[in-house]
Amino acid sequence: MVDYIADYLQQIRDRRVFPDVKPGYMQSLVPDEAPARPDKWEDIFADVERVIMPGVTHWQSPYMHAYFPALNSYPSLLGDMLANAISSLGFTWASSPACTELETIVMDWLGKMLGMPSCFLHGDRHSRSMGGGCIQTTASDCTFVTLLAARTEAIKRYKVGQPDLEDAEINGRLIGYCSDQAHSSVEKAGLIGLVKMRFLHSDDNLSLRGDSLQEAITADRESGLIPFYVCATLGTTGACAFDNLREIGPVCEKERLWLHMDAAYAGSAFICPEYRSWMLGIEFADSFAFNPSKWLMVHFDCSAMWVKDATALHRTFNVEPLYLQHENSGNVTASPHWQIALSRRFRSLKLWFVLRCFGVEGLQKHIRRGVELAMKFEDLVRSDHRFEVSAPRHLGMVVFRIAGANELTEELLKRLNKQGKVHMVPASLKGNYVIRFTVTSQFTTEVDIERSRVF
Amino acid sequence: MVDYIADYLQQIRDRRVFPDVKPGYMQSLVPDEAPARPDKWEDIFADVERVIMPGVTHWQSPYMHAYFPALNSYPSLLGDMLANAISSLGFTWASSPACTELETIVMDWLGKMLGMPSCFLHGDRHSRSMGGGCIQTTASDCTFVTLLAARTEAIKRYKVGQPDLEDAEINGRLIGYCSDQAHSSVEKAGLIGLVKMRFLHSDDNLSLRGDSLQEAITADRESGLIPFYVCATLGTTGACAFDNLREIGPVCEKERLWLHMDAAYAGSAFICPEYRSWMLGIEFADSFAFNPSKWLMVHFDCSAMWVKDATALHRTFNVEPLYLQHENSGNVTASPHWQIALSRRFRSLKLWFVLRCFGVEGLQKHIRRGVELAMKFEDLVRSDHRFEVSAPRHLGMVVFRIAGANELTEELLKRLNKQGKVHMVPASLKGNYVIRFTVTSQFTTEVDIERSRVF
Repeated sequence: MVDYIADYLQQIRDRRVFPDVKPGYMQSLVPDEAPARPDKWEDIFADVERVIMPGVTHWQSPYMHAYFPALNSYPSLLGDMLANAISSLGFTWASSPACTELETIVMDWLGKMLGMPSCFLHGDRHSRSMGGGCIQTTASDCTFVTLLAARTEAIKRYKVGQPDLEDAEINGRLIGYCSDQAHSSVEKAGLIGLVKMRFLHSDDNLSLRGDSLQEAITADRESGLIPFYVCATLGTTGACAFDNLREIGPVCEKERLWLHMDAAYAGSAFICPEYRSWMLGIEFADSFAFNPSKWLMVHFDCSAMWVKDATALHRTFNVEPLYLQHENSGNVTASPHWQIALSRRFRSLKLWFVLRCFGVEGLQKHIRRGVELAMKFEDLVRSDHRFEVSAPRHLGMVVFRIAGANELTEELLKRLNKQGKVHMVPASLKGNYVIRFTVTSQFTTEVDIERSRVF
Repeated sequence: MVDYIADYLQQIRDRRVFPDVKPGYMQSLVPDEAPARPDKWEDIFADVERVIMPGVTHWQSPYMHAYFPALNSYPSLLGDMLANAISSLGFTWASSPACTELETIVMDWLGKMLGMPSCFLHGDRHSRSMGGGCIQTTASDCTFVTLLAARTEAIKRYKVGQPDLEDAEINGRLIGYCSDQAHSSVEKAGLIGLVKMRFLHSDDNLSLRGDSLQEAITADRESGLIPFYVCATLGTTGACAFDNLREIGPVCEKERLWLHMDAAYAGSAFICPEYRSWMLGIEFADSFAFNPSKWLMVHFDCSAMWVKDATALHRTFNVEPLYLQHENSGNVTASPHWQIALSRRFRSLKLWFVLRCFGVEGLQKHIRRGVELAMKFEDLVRSDHRFEVSAPRHLGMVVFRIAGANELTEELLKRLNKQGKVHMVPASLKGNYVIRFTVTSQFTTEVDIERSRVF
C-alpha cells in the first residue's frame, strides 16, 4: 500500500484529473452483497484500480484547480497512520492524555505562527487565559458551534432582563449577519440553529463594511429583533475577498455581538507576515477559524478554531455523565467538549508532524510559491483580450470569464471539465458567471500553469 | 512507520494500558513554538516514544475494558491510508464520484448484513426507495441530525394547521423522549436543538417500555406541548440494556413521532442472527444508527446511519450554491448532505476493505468470541461471593460491584486503574455505583480474562 500510494502521488499527472464516468458507474462493478468468506487481498487490491480510481476526482493533481486546495503530504499521511494505529477516542483527558495535550500544544504553536493575540492561546500551566484553540472537523462546524455559543450567551444575557421568557421565544428573535459572499455553511448554521440570518450587501470589492452592518443592526433592533452574531469572511469562496475587520470589529464590540472570523482558505497564508494586513482587527474577534486541511499540507479533516473565552462553549456543550468522570478531569483546562460529537480522533499528530517536517519557513515557502503561480496565471489571462479578470486576485486564486454573455463562460467551463485535463468550478459574483482557478498542489510548476493556457 | 505500527499492535501487552502521567505532562517535553526550519525525521520519530506513548491510553490493548471497544484492524488501517492518499472531499457526486458511490454500496451491504428491511436501503438504480444509509462521524451526530430532521417534519406539519406561527414558537413547544439510561448525547442534542427532552423511567431491566412512553406523551399533549421524537437505545452505555421496540414502535406510529434507534455498541452484534431479537420492531423506526467503529474492526470514525425516508433530512440540510452544482448533480439519489459539515472523508474505503477481508463469517466469529469471553468473566465474578453482577450480562459487557456500600467499589476501581494493568470505567445504575467490564480487542484470549481476576 505504501508503494502504491507513493506511485499514485508521483505519477498523478498521468491520470485525468476529472473522471469520465456516469452516475451509477460503480454498481455493475461490484457484487450486491458483502462476501460471506474473506476475499483474497490480491483481488481487493486490484479493485482499487478497477473500481475506485476510474471514479476519483484527483484532488492532489497539479491539474486540480477546482474548489480550494485539500492537500496531503507525506508527514501528514504518516501522522495519521500512527493516529489510526493508536485509535484512541480523546473525549476526556483520561481517555487519552497525549491526544488532549498535544492538541493544546500544537494549537498554541499554530496560533503563534499566525500571530494570534495571546488571549486566544492556552498558554502554559500558569496562564489565566480563558481562551484557546482546538481542532474541529470542518470550517462549517466551526461556524455552527460558534453560532451556538453566541446563541447561549445572547439568551443568557437577555434573560437577565426578562427572566420569564422561554429560551425558544428569545431564540425566535435572534438575528445573525454575514455578507452576501459568505459560505453556504453560514446559511446552514442559521437554519439549524433556528435563527434568522441576514445577508448584507458587500461593496464593489466584495467586502462587508462596517456601515452596512451598523445600519442593519439598528433597523433590526427597531423592529424588535435581537442581533447576536456576525460571521466575517477572510477569503470568500467566490473570489477570495476579505471583509473589513477594522470596521466590523468596533461595531460588534459596541453592539455586543459575537464576532466569528471564517478564514477557511486564507488563514494558512497568515503564517506569512506580509499577508497579515487582512487580519487587522483580529483583537475584536470572539472566535477565529481556518483550515490547515486546505493549504497547509495537513490532509482533511483538520480545522483550527480559537476562541477568546471558552466559557460560552463549555456552557453550550458540557454534559458530564459518570463514566466520563475521572479523578483528573477537574484539573484540566483543555478538554474541549466544543463539538456535537463526544469522541475525537488524534488529529493533532498529523499537524505536529507537518509543522516539524516542513518547519515554519518551509510552509511559508509553499504559500508564497502558490501565490506566485496564481500571479503567473493571472498574467496569462490578462494578456489575452478575450478574457477578463473578474475581481482582484488575492492569494492563490484567480477568477476570470470570457468578456460577454455568461453563457460563453459557462460553455467554456463545461468543455474544459469534459476533457478532464484541468478541473475548475464556477462561482457567481453579483450576477456574473465566473470560473475560479485555484493553485492547489505543492508540486505545481510553471510548466503546469503554462499548460492550463492550452485548454 | 508501518513496522513501528505492526510492532506496537503486536507487543501492546507490554505497555501499561492506562498511562501513569499527570495533567500537563507533555508541556516540559516539547518546545513552546514550532521549529523555523525542518526537524530531522529521526528526532520526530523518536519523539513518538518519548513524548506521545507515555500519555496514551491503549485502546487496542487486550487489557482495555473501559468504555466500549474502539477497534482497528489491518484492513481498516490500509483502507484509510488509501483514502488519505486520495484525500478527496466528497461533498457532491462530482467532487469524488467513487466516494459517493462506494458509500452507498457498502451501506447497502452492511444493511443487508444486519437484516435491515429493504425500505432502509438505497437499492439499485431502478429502486423507488426513499431511504438509504450513509456514514456519519459519531452516534452523537446521528442522534443530533435525526432530531433535527424530526424537528423539521414536526414544524412543517404543525404549520399546516397554524400557518401564522413562527418556527421558533413551535420549536419552543416540541418535546422529545428517551429513557433514563440513554447516552448523554441525547441530552446534548436536545440542548442544541433547543427542544425539551424528557428522560423516562426504565423498568427493572433498565428497559424503556411502551406504557411509560404513552403516558408521558398523553400528559405532555394535555399541557400544550408537541411530542415529536423518541430516541430508543439498543445497548445502553451503563449496562447494555435494550429498550422495548415492539412496544415503543406502535406508540410512535400512532402518535406520529419520529423514532430513532441508537444501537451504537450493540448494532455490530446484529450481524449474527441469534442477537436480532433485540431488533424486533425495527420496521417502526424512522432512523437507525450503530458504530462499526466500535466492535466491527473499522477504526473511528465510522457511524452507520439509515433512514426510511430521506426527505426530511434533505429539507433540513440542503443548501446548494453554484460552485457545488454540476451537470450530474440532479441525477444522483445518493449525495447525502445529511450532516452539519459540507465535506466528507472517503470513509467507505476502510469499511469496504474490512467487510471483504474478514467476510461476514469472519466478523460474526469475532462478535461471538467477544460474547464468550464476557461470559467467562461473568462466571469468574459470580464464583466469588464478595462480588455481585449488577444487571443481566448482554453481549460483551459485564457490570459488577462489591456487595455493600458504593464506596467500596469506587475504591476498588481507583486502585485498579492506578496499577495500569487493566482499565475500566464506572457507571451509575439507579443509584448503584458499578464497574463496567467490556471485552474489546480482537486479540483478547482466555488467559487475558483469567489475568483480570488477579487485579
